[in-house]
Amino acid sequence: MDSDDDDNKKWTPKGGKKVTELKRVLIRECKEKENQEVTIKGWVKRVRHLGSISFVLLRDRTGEIQCVLENQWAGFKLEAEGAIELRGIVKKTNQTHIGVEVLAESVTILSNSAPLPFELSKQTLNAGLDQVLSNRFVSFRHHKISTIFKIKALFVKSFSEFLTEQGFTQIFTPKLVSQGAEGGANVFKLNYFGKEAYLAQSPQFYKQMMVGAGFERVFEIAPVYRAEEHNSSRHLNEYISLDAEMGFIEDFREIMKLETELLKFIFQKIQCSCSQDLAAFNANIPVIDKIPELSLIEAQTILKEVYKKESPEGDLNTEGEKLIGKYIKEKQGSDFVFITHYPADTRPMYTMPNKENPKLTDSFDLLYKGTEITSGGQRIHNHAELLKSFDNKGLNPKEFTSYLEAFQYGFPPHGGFAIGLERILYRFLNLGNVREASAFPRDCDRLVP
Amino acid sequence: MDSDDDDNKKWTPKGGKKVTELKRVLIRECKEKENQEVTIKGWVKRVRHLGSISFVLLRDRTGEIQCVLENQWAGFKLEAEGAIELRGIVKKTNQTHIGVEVLAESVTILSNSAPLPFELSKQTLNAGLDQVLSNRFVSFRHHKISTIFKIKALFVKSFSEFLTEQGFTQIFTPKLVSQGAEGGANVFKLNYFGKEAYLAQSPQFYKQMMVGAGFERVFEIAPVYRAEEHNSSRHLNEYISLDAEMGFIEDFREIMKLETELLKFIFQKIQCSCSQDLAAFNANIPVIDKIPELSLIEAQTILKEVYKKESPEGDLNTEGEKLIGKYIKEKQGSDFVFITHYPADTRPMYTMPNKENPKLTDSFDLLYKGTEITSGGQRIHNHAELLKSFDNKGLNPKEFTSYLEAFQYGFPPHGGFAIGLERILYRFLNLGNVREASAFPRDCDRLVP
Repeated sequence: MDSDDDDNKKWTPKGGKKVTELKRVLIRECKEKENQEVTIKGWVKRVRHLGSISFVLLRDRTGEIQCVLENQWAGFKLEAEGAIELRGIVKKTNQTHIGVEVLAESVTILSNSAPLPFELSKQTLNAGLDQVLSNRFVSFRHHKISTIFKIKALFVKSFSEFLTEQGFTQIFTPKLVSQGAEGGANVFKLNYFGKEAYLAQSPQFYKQMMVGAGFERVFEIAPVYRAEEHNSSRHLNEYISLDAEMGFIEDFREIMKLETELLKFIFQKIQCSCSQDLAAFNANIPVIDKIPELSLIEAQTILKEVYKKESPEGDLNTEGEKLIGKYIKEKQGSDFVFITHYPADTRPMYTMPNKENPKLTDSFDLLYKGTEITSGGQRIHNHAELLKSFDNKGLNPKEFTSYLEAFQYGFPPHGGFAIGLERILYRFLNLGNVREASAFPRDCDRLVP
Repeated sequence: MDSDDDDNKKWTPKGGKKVTELKRVLIRECKEKENQEVTIKGWVKRVRHLGSISFVLLRDRTGEIQCVLENQWAGFKLEAEGAIELRGIVKKTNQTHIGVEVLAESVTILSNSAPLPFELSKQTLNAGLDQVLSNRFVSFRHHKISTIFKIKALFVKSFSEFLTEQGFTQIFTPKLVSQGAEGGANVFKLNYFGKEAYLAQSPQFYKQMMVGAGFERVFEIAPVYRAEEHNSSRHLNEYISLDAEMGFIEDFREIMKLETELLKFIFQKIQCSCSQDLAAFNANIPVIDKIPELSLIEAQTILKEVYKKESPEGDLNTEGEKLIGKYIKEKQGSDFVFITHYPADTRPMYTMPNKENPKLTDSFDLLYKGTEITSGGQRIHNHAELLKSFDNKGLNPKEFTSYLEAFQYGFPPHGGFAIGLERILYRFLNLGNVREASAFPRDCDRLVP
């Protein structure tokens, strides 16, 4: 599908002989084209003029290749990061690591480049986060940065692939909603044809409804919104939530098992396709077997006894998560740990109470390298119980009518989880800031580009 | 991954003998389990009590099966659409079209159902659109309605699969933006930490930027927002836009070729997986070879000469699209037709002017069964030309700085298109209203469920 397969446009090379224009060849394909004429297209990464010869390092989405400009082309003016088309012969060489270079016959500038705001040709980009984000168009050109987004795409592809294979249906639920899923705080409000609408904080209600309505197993890949004013390195105001929800479960451990298998699958896929890209991030594929579990009370006891740290009531704070992550890594060699059985007081109103101790819930968080990347659990499916839970939280059932009504019509036991996509990539790739895993991050100060 | 593979929970059946609880079997799997004991879970579609025997038609996400309740289970009270678990023996029978039924040994009610707002067991749902949409939780239970969303998921999966295979990277761009892509009209506004923000009408600027920034080929599957007050059967205020954009193209026909191949692939996939579901919709897989093309002027001439209809300046109206769809179907047997070369006046400022006639553009719409389902074309990649085009449209470049700046750094020739997901499904499945292809549609009057 690259370029004009059959248009057969004509052009006149030096010498005047009419030849059929060549189909674009990707740089990765050049290795197989020794002594053949090719047309390659891409961006100028570097130019060196050495008197009667110039060397151009050309980059396309598949790789980089050295091009040699001699004779009338030597010294031809090319800007770094300009887009060009280059026709030439692929020659064997031991001067480049791919074993070939292209001896140019003609060069066409497709689009020139202005001087760059920062240098791109170094292995690691020498620019601050703000500069990187404000000049996304330029910083994306850096291999290490574009790799983040290629891994992001692969993560999502693998997420879909695994769940589809397990009988899940991808769903698309509205981001314009009439109430916040968790009860209303921290939502962006807008005027929707005279009504008050909110941007969805999560697809929670909708994914549950679709499970209960017969789809049984659903997933969604979509943006969610949090109007929180924190400006931490691990929060975004708009991020991609990878949501899964399934029905007819026996208990919440089934959900944890699903997530374990899912993560194992995704990281195997990343290992297969991207292992050589991980070194630049000092990133390792996590070994996932059975992910260790600690109840919240156990985790809090460890924090107290081992690290002399108090936790907030019914939760872990950032420092606590970090220490528990360290503890589990040291004791059990795992990057992941499930924290289970949060108290009902600190979990949303739809969370299933634990049968043995109804003050606790059948819920979990998943920590990865000491950072929460998932919340999940079993949900209440009994209509009367759910109404009671809303009441206990001081919520008015009338504001949640369309959600609550669903539970009157045979809602099976169910549960699910959500993974913060940028959050898990930020930890996996050892990024300094979650913003680096968002193409165009949104935070309190950033609405452009 | 279904249910408790290895938890080995115990339960006591009638008779008191402890046995290991059975793993859930999907209804589709029962055919292969003749004379075996199974535990199935699902919803009661229908119950018939005939004295000493009851028949329950049970449905899960994979199918339906007849269950026979005898002895102490005969007459057991089950509500239509209640969720149950049923253990029994699979028996051969010639009374059901799948050739087996389940002789129940025990039945557990997981969740009862209140009386339904409308009857679900008929082939075609006897409920108005408003009733269907307002009671989504119930209407999803109907096979024909859930099928729409299974086909929607497959459409999206196939879209991703084809483009990934062609070297495209899936991207995730912000839906909270500082300006409307097409220049500002019909956008939802909100307060973003004291700044004015909009909900993105399209990922246009971002997908172009990511192509030009080195990804070359990108696609996005995400909601877009139009604050338009029309209440037609083919418009939604929030819908899923399937966007694709590619760089280093020769001309806009390459984009049309890409879309042709993509649609061919997607419909082949639907044919493979869902062909038996299409009959209920009276839907046929469109035959796609080379999609016919008409320039806008040609289309307008046909409307005038064949149908005596005038078109609005530089565009087709709804009636015009319908007639051209009919014309092409009659003359060339195609459900699809590309309309090309719209005037610059009626296309957005980023549209590439035609080289031979700069008043026209290298742009296209794709009509499917007489309805526009795609806009696309080549975009301007030269910075100076783009500035001029903004100026010609009376737009202030200062409001588009981060987009325009990108074109200073070697932006290659490029183009793309967007498909309205619900729109194409609405036409493909012969739905009466595009809302039927949205799980929870948003229109001027509808913000819940």
